[in-house]
Amino acid sequence: MEDYFKNLAHRRFNILTEEWVLVSPHRTKRPWQGQEEEIPKVDRPSYDKSCYLCPGNKRANGEQNPNYEDVFIFENDFAALTQNNEAYETNNGLIKAETESGICKVICFSPDHSKSLAQMSIDEIKKVVLAWQSEYFKLGREEAINYVQIFENKGEVMGCSNPHPHGQIWSQSSLPNEVDKKDKSQRRYHSKNNRSMLADYLKQELEINERIIFENKSYAVLVPFWAIWPFEVMILPKSHQNSIYQIPPSETILFAEAISVITRAYDKLFNCSFPYSSGIHQAPTNSANNKHWHWHMNFYPPLLRSATVKKFMVGYEMFASPQRDITAESAAKTLQSLIQINF
Amino acid sequence: MEDYFKNLAHRRFNILTEEWVLVSPHRTKRPWQGQEEEIPKVDRPSYDKSCYLCPGNKRANGEQNPNYEDVFIFENDFAALTQNNEAYETNNGLIKAETESGICKVICFSPDHSKSLAQMSIDEIKKVVLAWQSEYFKLGREEAINYVQIFENKGEVMGCSNPHPHGQIWSQSSLPNEVDKKDKSQRRYHSKNNRSMLADYLKQELEINERIIFENKSYAVLVPFWAIWPFEVMILPKSHQNSIYQIPPSETILFAEAISVITRAYDKLFNCSFPYSSGIHQAPTNSANNKHWHWHMNFYPPLLRSATVKKFMVGYEMFASPQRDITAESAAKTLQSLIQINF
Ligand SMILES: O=P(O)(O)O[C@H]1O[C@H](CO)[C@@H](O)[C@H](O)[C@H]1O
Ligand SMILES: O=P(O)(O)O[C@H]1O[C@H](CO)[C@@H](O)[C@H](O)[C@H]1O
Repeated sequence: MEDYFKNLAHRRFNILTEEWVLVSPHRTKRPWQGQEEEIPKVDRPSYDKSCYLCPGNKRANGEQNPNYEDVFIFENDFAALTQNNEAYETNNGLIKAETESGICKVICFSPDHSKSLAQMSIDEIKKVVLAWQSEYFKLGREEAINYVQIFENKGEVMGCSNPHPHGQIWSQSSLPNEVDKKDKSQRRYHSKNNRSMLADYLKQELEINERIIFENKSYAVLVPFWAIWPFEVMILPKSHQNSIYQIPPSETILFAEAISVITRAYDKLFNCSFPYSSGIHQAPTNSANNKHWHWHMNFYPPLLRSATVKKFMVGYEMFASPQRDITAESAAKTLQSLIQINF
Repeated sequence: MEDYFKNLAHRRFNILTEEWVLVSPHRTKRPWQGQEEEIPKVDRPSYDKSCYLCPGNKRANGEQNPNYEDVFIFENDFAALTQNNEAYETNNGLIKAETESGICKVICFSPDHSKSLAQMSIDEIKKVVLAWQSEYFKLGREEAINYVQIFENKGEVMGCSNPHPHGQIWSQSSLPNEVDKKDKSQRRYHSKNNRSMLADYLKQELEINERIIFENKSYAVLVPFWAIWPFEVMILPKSHQNSIYQIPPSETILFAEAISVITRAYDKLFNCSFPYSSGIHQAPTNSANNKHWHWHMNFYPPLLRSATVKKFMVGYEMFASPQRDITAESAAKTLQSLIQINF
C-alpha cells in the first residue's frame, strides 16, 4: 500500500458490498481500559455426556444422535427458518413485509467434542467440504430455496452456545442483504468485462503480494484490501467457480488445506482457540444466470490485541461505517509469520 | 401487525437503509446455554480520582479537565479521524482508497461520575441537546467537514471503556455508509412525493398505534417496524426538520424528555444500567439540498432476555442479514408498560 496511507486516516472501498471501511492506522497506540473477554480454556474431553451434539446423546427435542464417525447433519431443533406452506406479504410503500420459507441445519464437523477445525486433519476437513457441497446441492434443489448460507460461529464470544465443533446451514427463499449486494456488484462487473471480478482482483493481489498469506495450486488465502475485522481473511479459489459445487473432486483437499492453514495460524496468533464467524458466499440456487458469481469463504474474527481484547463494532460502526486501526497489510504480515506449511 | 406474521418467519423492509431483517417469532422458546455478560454493578461514586473524564482530573495526554459544571467537550485524545492537510486517492477499479479528514470529540454529559442519562434531570439532558446542536453547527461550518455523527456507546458490553456519562462526535469529509443509504432513500421519496418520508411513516405509525411507546407534543418514541435489535427504539420529531439544529428553542426540552423517558424505561426492563449504542442521523453539512432529510435518533441495545443474555449478531447476521426473534410489536408492548410519564 502506498506509504501515505500507512499513517493517515483513510477509507477503503469494498468492491463486493460497495461500502467503505474507515482505517485509522495512527490509532493503534490507544490504551485499553474496557471490557476483556473470558476465553474458556480448551481442555475439553473427547466426549461430553451433557453435550447435545456428541454421538449417541439426546437433543432438546428428545431425538438421539447416531454414533456418527465423521460429519453429522440434522435439522435445527430451533430453526429461525421453517418451511411455510402459506405465503403472505404486506406493502403500502412504507410498511413492507413478506413471509420467508427456509430450512436450517446443523453440521457437526467431528464426533470428537474436544476438537476444532484447527485440530482436525486435512482429510477430516475434506469430509466437511464434501458435506457442504452435497447440502448446497440438495437444499438448492428444493423449489422454495434460492440461497444456501453456510456458516460457523466459533467461540462463546461469537454467540456459540456449544463448543462441540459444528457449523450451520440456513437456506431460504430470498437473497439475504449481503448476498444481494455481492450479486449486484459481481453481475455489473461481469456484464461489463465478461470476466470474474474476483478473479481479476486475485490476479492483482498475487502481483502486489502484500496481503496474500498462503496459496496452493487452487486457492489463495488473503486479507482483503477492504477487511473490516482486525484479522479478517478470505479464501479465494484461483479458478472461476460459481459455487462450491463446482470444485473439482481433486481440489477439495486443497480447499481443506487452506482452511486448516488459516485456522491453525489463528490459534497461534493469541495462543487461544481463536473465535470467529466464517461463511461462504456463492451463487443463488434458483437463478439461471450465475456466471458472474465467484464463490469465496470469509473469516470474521473479533479479537484485536490479545485473547481477551476484542474490537467492538458499536456506535460509530453501527451508525456510520466500520472502522479499524491496524491496516490489512500489517494484519497480513502478522498472519504470514504464523503459517506452517508442512505438517 | 397482521396475525399471520405473528407466528411465521418473515422479512421486513427498512425503508431508510433499503435492507431486510429476518424475523422468527416462533423461535423465542429457544433455550440459552451460551455466554452471559457481566453487567457491572452501578454503585459508582460521584467523583472517581482515576477517571480521566471527571472534572479536574488529568487525561492520558497530560491535559487537565476544567472543573466543569454541566457539559464538557474536548477533542478525542486518540482520534480515529484527524485533520489531514494532504489528500490522496488510489483507484484502479478494484483497489480503491482515499484519505479522510475529520475531527473527533468527546462530550461529557455530566460532571457526576455516578450518573447516566437515565438518572439526569430533563433540564440536565437539555444541556446535552444544546451542546449537540452547537457542535453540529460549529463542526459543520468547517470546510472539510460534511457529516457530523453524534453517538454514545453505553456500557462495557458496548465497548465503552469508561462508565463516566459521555458520548462522542465524529465528524468527517465524506458521507459514511449508513448515512449515504438514508440520504438516497429519503431523497428519492422526497423528489417523488414532495414530502418527508419519515413524516409520512410517523403518520402511519400514529394511526396504527402498535409500536408507539411514548409521545409528547413534538416527538414520538417508537420501535421501528424494521427494528433489528430486540429493544431497538427510534425518536422521531413530529415536524419535518433536516437536522437537530432546526429544533426550535422551545422544543429542546421535549426532545430531552423523550430521551429521559426511553432511557429510564430501558433501565427498568432488566433492572440494570441498560447498555446501548445510540446515534443521531441527520442532514450532511455541506450539501445545498437537504430538504429530504428528517433527522432521527436511534437506540441499539444488545440485550435480549435479561441483564446478562444478549443477542449475538454473528454468522448468519454478518453473512446474510440481521435476524431477530421477538417481534417489534411485542418489544413495543413491553417497553410501553415500563414508561413512567410523571416524574
Ligand atoms: O472511542 P472508544 O470509546 O475508546 O471506543 C469505542 O467506540 C468506538 C466508536 O464506536 C469504536 O471504534 C471502538 O471499537 C469502541 O471500543
Ligand atoms: O443458532 P445458535 O448457534 O443457537 O445462535 C447463534 O447463531 C445465530 C445465527 O448466526 C444467531 O442468530 C444467534 O444470535 C447466535 O446466538
